[in-house]
Amino acid sequence: MTAEEKLRDQGCQAKAAGARLACMPTDIKNAALLAVADALEHNAGAIIEANAWDQAEAAAGGMNAAMLDRLILDEGRIKAIAADVRTVAALPDPVGEIFDMRTHANGLVIGKKRVPLGVIAAIYESRPNVTVDITALCLKAGNAVILRGGKETIHSNRVLVNIIHDALTRSGISPEAVQFIDDTDRALVPVLLHMSDLIDLVIPRGGAGLIKSVKETSTIPVVAGGIGVCHTYVDAAAKIKDAVAIAYNAKVQRPTVCNAMDTLIVHQAVAEEYLPLIAAEWAQAGVEMRCDERALAILSGRPNLKLAAAEPDDWSREYLALIAGVRVVDDLDGALRHISAYGSGHSEAIVTEDYSNAQRFLNEVDAAAVYVNASTRFTDGAQFGLGAEIGISTQKMHARGPLGLKEITSYKWLVYGSGTVRP
Amino acid sequence: MTAEEKLRDQGCQAKAAGARLACMPTDIKNAALLAVADALEHNAGAIIEANAWDQAEAAAGGMNAAMLDRLILDEGRIKAIAADVRTVAALPDPVGEIFDMRTHANGLVIGKKRVPLGVIAAIYESRPNVTVDITALCLKAGNAVILRGGKETIHSNRVLVNIIHDALTRSGISPEAVQFIDDTDRALVPVLLHMSDLIDLVIPRGGAGLIKSVKETSTIPVVAGGIGVCHTYVDAAAKIKDAVAIAYNAKVQRPTVCNAMDTLIVHQAVAEEYLPLIAAEWAQAGVEMRCDERALAILSGRPNLKLAAAEPDDWSREYLALIAGVRVVDDLDGALRHISAYGSGHSEAIVTEDYSNAQRFLNEVDAAAVYVNASTRFTDGAQFGLGAEIGISTQKMHARGPLGLKEITSYKWLVYGSGTVRP
Repeated sequence: MTAEEKLRDQGCQAKAAGARLACMPTDIKNAALLAVADALEHNAGAIIEANAWDQAEAAAGGMNAAMLDRLILDEGRIKAIAADVRTVAALPDPVGEIFDMRTHANGLVIGKKRVPLGVIAAIYESRPNVTVDITALCLKAGNAVILRGGKETIHSNRVLVNIIHDALTRSGISPEAVQFIDDTDRALVPVLLHMSDLIDLVIPRGGAGLIKSVKETSTIPVVAGGIGVCHTYVDAAAKIKDAVAIAYNAKVQRPTVCNAMDTLIVHQAVAEEYLPLIAAEWAQAGVEMRCDERALAILSGRPNLKLAAAEPDDWSREYLALIAGVRVVDDLDGALRHISAYGSGHSEAIVTEDYSNAQRFLNEVDAAAVYVNASTRFTDGAQFGLGAEIGISTQKMHARGPLGLKEITSYKWLVYGSGTVRP
Repeated sequence: MTAEEKLRDQGCQAKAAGARLACMPTDIKNAALLAVADALEHNAGAIIEANAWDQAEAAAGGMNAAMLDRLILDEGRIKAIAADVRTVAALPDPVGEIFDMRTHANGLVIGKKRVPLGVIAAIYESRPNVTVDITALCLKAGNAVILRGGKETIHSNRVLVNIIHDALTRSGISPEAVQFIDDTDRALVPVLLHMSDLIDLVIPRGGAGLIKSVKETSTIPVVAGGIGVCHTYVDAAAKIKDAVAIAYNAKVQRPTVCNAMDTLIVHQAVAEEYLPLIAAEWAQAGVEMRCDERALAILSGRPNLKLAAAEPDDWSREYLALIAGVRVVDDLDGALRHISAYGSGHSEAIVTEDYSNAQRFLNEVDAAAVYVNASTRFTDGAQFGLGAEIGISTQKMHARGPLGLKEITSYKWLVYGSGTVRP
């Protein structure tokens, strides 16, 4: 078999296993997830050993410390991954919900039933925990999964998938429901992305380059996102104390994630008062501020600040670091125009006590999540009540914002007749 | 401006107009739709004149009578199109619905608000009524639309769009919300399908070739379907009289549409009794039966039947004509296997009085609509309670089955805080 044939064969196995998984009772799926969680902890030694191999190869290849940290698995992280799997097991099963059912004038009883999507392919980079997270969510929602991790974690992923396969087999679920592409040849990715007869959804998780290339290549529907160029707008009517706390939290609480703030926009009427306050707080956390002319004029000369003049392409940058763009605008319209021009449709916040301005912001900003008087750091499946998330979508089709279990399902229409024909 | 630049410019206009339309009050949208309906009737003469030009060119190009009939517009059809627009005006506005809103443990009030998708591009063939239908549905749901009809109706479409533009302008809605690609150069379609920064959804409507090519080319999400290889399975426990009425209706009531039956599957235990009955009914309607060996053995020699031996590729054919495949199976499993192998995931029916078989069929058949004891001809937006439809999806992402107004919307998450930050 060529590598392409092997991949297609994996797709066929996944489709068949997915069809069986779609009818699997909830208690069997949950027991299998708990078995996976136990097995991960039980086999922590083997995982850490394989992971050390990945780390050694990455270090030899010159990977930087931040990236290297993302691929490390230790006892603590393995326990956390197992805990996440148990959380998924405890969530309600989305499959089988019947909704919108009613009797129609044509005599038919028509409704919808929630069903799994079928087969989900995940293409992702670095963090090996994604292997387990995505698998747990897909299985719980009755989907088979095809995993294509990065080459930097191939040893860890191989061991993790073996552990998952064993636990599934012992739990009465076919291990064919979890397919792992144990081949890092990049030429296989386009082949995978054209298997639209076997795969129902592709989820890319990684950098902007990966996501763009998957969207452009795939003939299978893609749900993508995660790129967050997020803004916090401090309105003239903001409570200044709240605005400091919110902007500080949005930038500093966890700067490396997609819902962290990238650009702070401030109404001119409060800029003189507000900017020195947030700048002083940020300075203590080591935040660099890339300012427009008006912000720079206000902040220049103050001690201990990391100030720079913003370059034009800074406004569309997702920093994932302790850096923030800072811009002063004339009014709410200026803020809305800036967000419309540079936002990525992820999470956008206004800080204001003005009712009409809050309403305008919520109505007019086109993003997955729009906030009044809160930090954008809340855009997250757990915080939004979904229990867990498989990703965050910045597109409008299918699902927007955090994707939980329900968002990796579809529905079918059920039609009950009694010899009913169309006149 | 080159044709490509003009197309991009149209995309930009649509995006800007869509953003304004997203906030448009329901009464203005409805008044605009009613103005469009009135204007269509008022300008019927000009439409018929342009349509005659299309007909003449099509006839000169050797178009067959069935295809030619699809592009004809006369007084009656124009009145019907106007009536459909008034129906859309009368439907509830999907935009602005707030749902799933509640107070979370983190102190935030979080919910979802239904919003337009933004810009929808429709690529379609022949029937000029699609120009008006899709425009009406898109406008009602707050979306801008980019129309790319076939060259065989370019004259009709041009006049229809002019009428729509005039009516919109008089109603206070920017005509830029309805963009018409007045250029039949096929090379522009791939350009359109790569404008993912300006277009949110592509809806192809036409034959299998068009849909396949759009899905393979587009980097924008596509909702496609409409191809229906639909089955009716007559179980051993069927009420024979119902089974005759249902199969007759599913094949004969309107054979040229996607929800019409293509293959009749019959349990061996009732084949001897049932097949001669449905064959006699179908014979009067002129239905040709393409039979497997067992069906042929039962039906051969009976008078007035149009019988043929089924070729292997008949099973995957969407006939859109008075032709039906006929197959006898050993049991329900045989029927399920046949549907799984050859169905297109559109509409599938079982006729049975057996509770468990009905449940198995509903659970195990993977299709947009699954029926018990009814004709598949009901798979339709109006029949399913959506009021109207923009198409029928046979994919599982975003929406499945008939697509109404709600299915061409998205949602945004609304988050209300009170100075709330993430711990």
